[in-house]
Amino acid sequence: MESKLKKLGFQGSEKLKTAPLKHSIKSVVKFLKENISEDDHRPAISLGLGDPSCFNCFRTTTVAEDAIVEAVRSAKFNSYAPTGGIFIARRAIAEYLSNDLPYQLSPDDVYVTVGCKHAMEVMVKVLARSEANILLPSPGYRIYETFANSHHLEFRHFDLLPEKGWEVDLDAVEAIADENTIAMVIINPGNPCGSVYSSEHLKKIAETARKLGILVIADEVYGHIVFGSKPFVPMSFFGSTAPVITLGSISKRWMVPGWRLGWLVTSDPTGLLKKCGIADSITNVLNPSPISPTFVQAAVPKILEKTTEDFFSKTIDLLRSASDFCYDKLKEIPCITCPQKAEGAMFVMVKLKVSLLDDVEDDTEFCLKLAKEESLVILPGLTVGLKNWLRITFAVEHSSLEDGLGRLKAFCQRHAKEP
Amino acid sequence: MESKLKKLGFQGSEKLKTAPLKHSIKSVVKFLKENISEDDHRPAISLGLGDPSCFNCFRTTTVAEDAIVEAVRSAKFNSYAPTGGIFIARRAIAEYLSNDLPYQLSPDDVYVTVGCKHAMEVMVKVLARSEANILLPSPGYRIYETFANSHHLEFRHFDLLPEKGWEVDLDAVEAIADENTIAMVIINPGNPCGSVYSSEHLKKIAETARKLGILVIADEVYGHIVFGSKPFVPMSFFGSTAPVITLGSISKRWMVPGWRLGWLVTSDPTGLLKKCGIADSITNVLNPSPISPTFVQAAVPKILEKTTEDFFSKTIDLLRSASDFCYDKLKEIPCITCPQKAEGAMFVMVKLKVSLLDDVEDDTEFCLKLAKEESLVILPGLTVGLKNWLRITFAVEHSSLEDGLGRLKAFCQRHAKEP
Ligand SMILES: Cc1ncc(COP(=O)(O)O)c(C=O)c1O
Ligand SMILES: Cc1ncc(COP(=O)(O)O)c(C=O)c1O
Repeated sequence: MESKLKKLGFQGSEKLKTAPLKHSIKSVVKFLKENISEDDHRPAISLGLGDPSCFNCFRTTTVAEDAIVEAVRSAKFNSYAPTGGIFIARRAIAEYLSNDLPYQLSPDDVYVTVGCKHAMEVMVKVLARSEANILLPSPGYRIYETFANSHHLEFRHFDLLPEKGWEVDLDAVEAIADENTIAMVIINPGNPCGSVYSSEHLKKIAETARKLGILVIADEVYGHIVFGSKPFVPMSFFGSTAPVITLGSISKRWMVPGWRLGWLVTSDPTGLLKKCGIADSITNVLNPSPISPTFVQAAVPKILEKTTEDFFSKTIDLLRSASDFCYDKLKEIPCITCPQKAEGAMFVMVKLKVSLLDDVEDDTEFCLKLAKEESLVILPGLTVGLKNWLRITFAVEHSSLEDGLGRLKAFCQRHAKEP
Repeated sequence: MESKLKKLGFQGSEKLKTAPLKHSIKSVVKFLKENISEDDHRPAISLGLGDPSCFNCFRTTTVAEDAIVEAVRSAKFNSYAPTGGIFIARRAIAEYLSNDLPYQLSPDDVYVTVGCKHAMEVMVKVLARSEANILLPSPGYRIYETFANSHHLEFRHFDLLPEKGWEVDLDAVEAIADENTIAMVIINPGNPCGSVYSSEHLKKIAETARKLGILVIADEVYGHIVFGSKPFVPMSFFGSTAPVITLGSISKRWMVPGWRLGWLVTSDPTGLLKKCGIADSITNVLNPSPISPTFVQAAVPKILEKTTEDFFSKTIDLLRSASDFCYDKLKEIPCITCPQKAEGAMFVMVKLKVSLLDDVEDDTEFCLKLAKEESLVILPGLTVGLKNWLRITFAVEHSSLEDGLGRLKAFCQRHAKEP
C-alpha cells in the first residue's frame, strides 16, 4: 500500500516546503511563536493577529451571549438549515445593512456563511471561470490569493497608496484590467492598513468599476470599526453605479471571531447580478458547502438588533486610544516610519528602514529575531504583500501594547547601526 | 458589463437544467414539496429526510444544551480556533471513539469538522490526485459523488447486496479496483438501507482493502444507532488490517444536525497514514476551510462524556418500534417489497414493482404523483442510485409515520392495475 500511495503522490511529509514566512498569517504567526525563546521569562506578547476577543476589555456583549443561549434553549433550531441560511437571519442581515443604504436590501440578497472567510471562498468559487481574472489590493489579505489559486482563478494586484491614506491606485486598476477582468476586491476598513475610505473615494471606485464593467467585492468585515475623522460608508452605497457584493460577519464588531457567522450579500439595485445568474451560481456553490449552525443563525436577529450603542462605543474608544498610543510610541523608534495613523480596523502598517539596522536583512529576519530576542510577535509585511514593512495589531489590552511597543523600541535600539 | 459577464459564462439562470429529481437529496425533497397540492387540506408529511430533530419525541438531551450554554457563558471560547480544532474537543472525540476499539486513539488523530458532510469533502479533497480513483457503494449517499466530481476525483461503484442484508459485494470491489484505486467508502449503519454490518463482514472488508492496498473511509455518522440483533462495530476495529479514516458527527446520535459538529479521524495503529503524509495533507486542506464555532467545539467533552444512557436508549427504542411498524405496514402494500427490515440508521429501502401499477412509469414518477395526490414526500431510489426503489424514513413521530404509510397504501391501491 505504501508504494501505491507514493505513486499517487503521497510522498511523506507534505509540510510547507518553502519558508513558512511566505504563508498564511495564521501559519506565519504560529511559526514565529515557535521561535520564542524558552529562556525568556517575560510573557510572550503577540501583536500579530486581529483577534482581541481573548482580552477581558474586549469581551462581547451579554446581548449576543443571551441570544445564543435563548436559541439553544428553545430547541427550535436543532435541524438542518436550508442552503443560504434561515429566513429570520437573512432578513435581519438585510435590515442591518440597509440602515446605511439609500435603498432596501431583501432577505433574498443575503446568504449566511461560516464567517467572512467562507464568504470569500464562495465568491472566488462563483467567479472562477477559465478565462476570468480578478483584481486584488496590495498590500492585502492573503487568503484571497489562496482561494484564487486553489480554484484556478487568475488574479492581478493593484497598489494601495500609503501617501494617500492607502487609497486604491485607480490608474493602476485601469491599467491592469482587461476584457476578462470580472471583479475587484476592496477591504474597507482596511486590513492590513487600518485605512478608512471616504465617500468620495468609494464613489470613484464605483465609477472605475462601471467604466471597466466589473463588480466590486467589498470585504467589510471591519465595517463600523472606525475611530478617525471619516465615517464608515459601505461600498454598496454606490451599488447603482456598479454592482457590489458585500462580505461581512459578526467576528470583529461583536468580538466573536470564534462564532463563525458571516454573510455574502448581493447589493444589486439594478438587478444585473440576478439577471446574469450570479445569484443562482452562489446557491449552487453553497449547496454542498458547510453552513453556520442553525441556532447561531437564529441568534442573529437579536445580536444585530438589540446590541446597545454603549457596547460599540466602548470598543471604539478603546481602539481609538490604542491606535493613538501606538502611533505616538512608534514615532520614538528611528528605524520605523508610520505614513498614516490607523483610523479603522485593528492594524497599522509601518515601514522598516533596514538600512539603519546592523544585522537585519529584511522584515522577515526582523520579525524572526524580534520573536527570539524579545518574545514579541509582529507580522512581517511580506505576509500581506509589502516587503520591509510591518503590520502591527493594536487591538490588544493596554498593558500588552505598552509592553510590546517597549520591547520593539529596545530591539531597534539594540540593532541600530552606529551613526 | 452584461455582455462581459455573458462572455465569461454567466448566462442567465444557472438553475439545474436537467430534471431536478437527479440531484441531491435536499433538492429532490425540496422539488417534491413544491409539488404538493394546495388544495389538499391534510398536513404534508415528509418521510424524505433523515432529520427527526424537529419532533418533540426526538428532542436532544439537556446535557447537550447545557454544554453549549456553559461554553458560551464562560466567554472563553470566542476566539478563532486552531486548524483541526481545539485540543479538549479532539481529546474527547479520541476518547469517545477509543471506547469501542482494541487500541487507543490520540487527539492528534482527530480533526474537528463542520459536520460529517464537511469531513467527507475534506477527505475527497485530500485524495483527489490526477490518476487516483475511489470506490463508492451503490445505493449510497450521493454527496460523495458531488464532491468527487467537483474535486476531479474519479469514482467507481460497487453494489450492496439486498439479499445479503445490503452487505458489500466484495467480489465486485476486487473487480473494479485497479492500481490507481486509493480508497473505498462504506457507510455503516447504512444510509439509505438501514443496514448494520456484522463484525465478520467488516473484517472481510478490511482484508479486501489490505489485499488491494487501499484505505477504508468509514462513514459512521449513524454510529451506535442500531436496534436489531447486531451491535455497532466501528470499521476502525480492524484498523491494523487496513488503515481506516472514520467520519462522524453528533448530528444523528444526539439529534442535532443543525449544530454542525463532526470529525475526521485517522485510525491508523500501524502509522501508515502519517508516514505517507496524509495527516499533513488533511491539515493543509483544513487550513483555509470553514471550522465549527469554538464554543460548540468546547461543548464536545460534556456532550460526549455526560450524556446518560437513558437518552440513547429512549431514542433507540423509538427507532426500533418505528422500524418494526414500518416493516409491518409495508407488507400490506402489494406493489412494494422490503427485502430487509432496517436494523440501524433511520431509513429502509423498498422495491417498487412498477409492473403492478397502472400509470406509473418509474420511482420518480411514483414519488411525484405521491406528493401531488397524497401530500406525502418519499425519496425516489434513483436519488440514492437505485432506480425503481424507494427510500422511506421512519425516524418521524409515530402519528406522521402511521398517517404517511396509510397514504402510501391508499395511493398504491388506487394506482394498482386491475388484476
Ligand atoms: C480583511 C479580512 N477579511 C476577512 C476576514 C475573516 O473574517 P471572519 O472571521 O468573519 O471569517 C478577516 C479576518 O481577520 C480579515 O481581516
Ligand atoms: C451517510 C451520511 N453521511 C453524512 C451525513 C452528513 O451528516 P452531518 O449532519 O454530520 O453533516 C449524512 C446526513 O444525512 C448521511 O446520511
